[in-house]
Amino acid sequence: MTIATPSRRAETSTPISEVMANRWSPRSFDPTVEVSESTITAALEAARWAPSASNTQPWRFIVARRGTPEHATIVENLMGFNQVWAETAAVLIVNIAVTKTEDGTPLRWAEYDLGQAVSHLSLQAHRDGLHVHQMGGILADGLSAAFGLSDELEPVSVTALGVLGAPENLPEKLRLREIAPRERKPLDELLIVTA
Amino acid sequence: MTIATPSRRAETSTPISEVMANRWSPRSFDPTVEVSESTITAALEAARWAPSASNTQPWRFIVARRGTPEHATIVENLMGFNQVWAETAAVLIVNIAVTKTEDGTPLRWAEYDLGQAVSHLSLQAHRDGLHVHQMGGILADGLSAAFGLSDELEPVSVTALGVLGAPENLPEKLRLREIAPRERKPLDELLIVTA
Repeated sequence: MTIATPSRRAETSTPISEVMANRWSPRSFDPTVEVSESTITAALEAARWAPSASNTQPWRFIVARRGTPEHATIVENLMGFNQVWAETAAVLIVNIAVTKTEDGTPLRWAEYDLGQAVSHLSLQAHRDGLHVHQMGGILADGLSAAFGLSDELEPVSVTALGVLGAPENLPEKLRLREIAPRERKPLDELLIVTA
Repeated sequence: MTIATPSRRAETSTPISEVMANRWSPRSFDPTVEVSESTITAALEAARWAPSASNTQPWRFIVARRGTPEHATIVENLMGFNQVWAETAAVLIVNIAVTKTEDGTPLRWAEYDLGQAVSHLSLQAHRDGLHVHQMGGILADGLSAAFGLSDELEPVSVTALGVLGAPENLPEKLRLREIAPRERKPLDELLIVTA
C-alpha cells in the first residue's frame, strides 16, 4: 500500500523559484541508487561560488560516497536517530567552517558563510533531481578526531544527499514526520521593521 | 565612455544553475529605480522557506526602502566605504540571528541558518532581475540600539538590494573592484577528503 504524501510545496504569498518552493528535507533515501559524479561536482561547484565576507570562502568539505569507510565513519558520528536513516544516503558531506586565518585572525562570518555555501549546494542538488537533508545533530569532536582536522576547522553540520525514497521505508515515527505538512512562521513574524 | 565589463559569470568545471553562475555582488546600484513590492515579498518568502536546524527559523529582518529614515539609519551603521555605495541601494535589509530561545537555550546554528536564509533571498532577488550585495562590515551594536533590538537578536550582516548601476558611478577604487575578474579557490582546495 502506498501512503499518499501531501504536497511538499511551500505555501507563499507570492510565487518563488520552483527549486526553492519544492525543496524539502526528507529522511527516506533510496539505498540502491548512486549519484553521478557530475551531479556531485555540480553541487560542490555551486557551493564554491557562494558569496562570503571579503571573499574569504571559509568552507571546506569531506565528501563520502555510500559503501566507503569514510561514509561509515560519518554515520558513526551522527547523533540519535540521524544514524537510523542517514546511512542510506548516497553521499554524506561534512560541512566545515574555517574559523580563523593562518595567522589566527578569527573569521567572524565563517558559519554564516558556510550556511550560504551549503544552501547553494542543496539548491543545485535539488535542481538536479536529488534531495538533501542537513543535520546539526553531529558529534563534531568525533568527526574532527576521525578525520584529523586541525584546530581552525570546525565541523558544523552534515549533509545527506541522494535520491528520494519511499516514506514506507522509515520506522513509524520518522514516517509520520516525512509526510507531515511543511510549516513556517508567517512572514509578518520575521519582519521586525518594514519601512 | 563606457567601461567594458568582463564577464561576471562563474567559471565551473561542470555547469551550475544560471542564477548561481550569474549572481555576483556589485557596489553600483541605480539610485533612481524602485524595486516592486512583489519582488521584495518574493525575496523574503524565499528566505522564509529556507531550511534550519529543527525548523527553528532563527532569522529576522529589518527591511528599509530608500528614502525612509530607517534606510538612512542603516547606512549610518555601515562601516567604512560601505557607506559610500550602499546608500544608493533601493532596499537595505538587516539580517538578524535569533541566538537563543525564549527560555534562554542557545540556538547553535543561528548564524549558519541565517546564512542559508539570506542565500535564498539573494538567489530569488537575482532571479527577479535584481542584484544583491551582503556586507559584514556593520556596526551591530549601533543597529541594535537604533532599532531597540532585544538581547537575543544579533545583527549579523546587511543586504543591499537593487537594480545594477554602471561601474562609472563609483569612485575609482571601487570601480576597479567592480570590473575585476571574479575568483574562487580551486575545488580541490575545498575538499579535505573525497571518498
